[in-house]
Amino acid sequence: MALRPLCGDLPLFLQSYLPNAVEKGNAIQPFITLTYAQSLDARISRGPGIKTVISHPETKTMTHYLRHHHDGILIGSGTALVDDPGLNCKWGPNSFANSPRPIILDTKQKWRFNGSKIQELFNKRQGKPPIVVVTSDPLIKEEHVEYAICPIDEATERIDWKKLFEILKEDFNISSVMVEGGANVINQLLLRGDIINSLIITIGSTFLGNSGTEVSPPQTVNLKDMTWWKGTTDVVLCARLADD
Amino acid sequence: MALRPLCGDLPLFLQSYLPNAVEKGNAIQPFITLTYAQSLDARISRGPGIKTVISHPETKTMTHYLRHHHDGILIGSGTALVDDPGLNCKWGPNSFANSPRPIILDTKQKWRFNGSKIQELFNKRQGKPPIVVVTSDPLIKEEHVEYAICPIDEATERIDWKKLFEILKEDFNISSVMVEGGANVINQLLLRGDIINSLIITIGSTFLGNSGTEVSPPQTVNLKDMTWWKGTTDVVLCARLADD
Repeated sequence: MALRPLCGDLPLFLQSYLPNAVEKGNAIQPFITLTYAQSLDARISRGPGIKTVISHPETKTMTHYLRHHHDGILIGSGTALVDDPGLNCKWGPNSFANSPRPIILDTKQKWRFNGSKIQELFNKRQGKPPIVVVTSDPLIKEEHVEYAICPIDEATERIDWKKLFEILKEDFNISSVMVEGGANVINQLLLRGDIINSLIITIGSTFLGNSGTEVSPPQTVNLKDMTWWKGTTDVVLCARLADD
Repeated sequence: MALRPLCGDLPLFLQSYLPNAVEKGNAIQPFITLTYAQSLDARISRGPGIKTVISHPETKTMTHYLRHHHDGILIGSGTALVDDPGLNCKWGPNSFANSPRPIILDTKQKWRFNGSKIQELFNKRQGKPPIVVVTSDPLIKEEHVEYAICPIDEATERIDWKKLFEILKEDFNISSVMVEGGANVINQLLLRGDIINSLIITIGSTFLGNSGTEVSPPQTVNLKDMTWWKGTTDVVLCARLADD
């Protein structure tokens, strides 16, 4: 399905929150944008694996415009397995050139490129081949897939995010990453003001209900540089994580 | 503390969602506005009894402007007990005349007027005396308090909301009620498109974290007639509950 045209006032609204802004990632770390769409009750889906429309088609176009501005797009393997997203960029004339590299965080090595939507788009030259993030040598190596081996942070028993983004920059030349989900990844990264450069949240005017998949960090998180955009039925917040 | 002036574009934004609009409550039911302020992660406080600043002073002024337009303001006794709110109207020249009647939903008869902020404001003629909603004859009758005896809905084992609002209109001449909380009351009423005329939600640009008190109804709730207002750091959504 073709995208709607981009709303005329969105490029200026987004400008200072994009990787091409002055504060582009320094030499070691890429520029990281954390972005997702949620309901009023902070749900990003009605439940695991349930395809859920939250936002208006005009904010879907915005998502593809954001993808155009990033070298990589990262999701957790949980989301990759249940949603099987394409993660390419449909905005602009050339899907292949404009698309970010899909980056699948797959510490349990459960996701396969073979048979995925990402593979289908790559075969049609409408999307790039993925980088799969693992914590030790991959058990299975698939054709066209590159693997990033990243250590676990022993303190948190989660992926060592800082190290991961350094590896993506140094070994894969990824200077900007858009993190799209799922909730587990988002809730971890909302606490990482040392890593996240921009936060872009779309809020759709609906309630998905309390059995939906929720975004809420384990503690209070304050923001700065907040600015809102009003769409037909949604709003979009651009902000940065506060230093406190 | 004095209120800030009301933002100039708010009266027009709110106009068609207020009780003075054309669709003012019919003969039996008052006009009911459900309104609250939440964080991005749909929390209305950091936890029970923790006074939490979510919204900008300009949306606090809006809350008092809304109070000015309603005959009654309803909260659950849980909120009344932990927050001890005043529930008066500080907008406009005359607090007493402009203030709505506080309506405390107190099915367990635990709340007392004596010693409350509501009593303090009433004694200073800056607020009206309350109506306390009970499900049987009150065990203790306090001076200046009126009691509304309302049955429990046997199907839900909750208050019979429809009956309650009919009683408030018929016996207390309350033609419009603003429901301000807490989460338990809001989550019940988000399902009552047959009762709620307007929904006005302020969203502050902060995360209160997953141990906060959450608004999320037990099922999907769709809205209609959505319109957004952008403030300095917050947005406000006006909407109605959809019929589906």
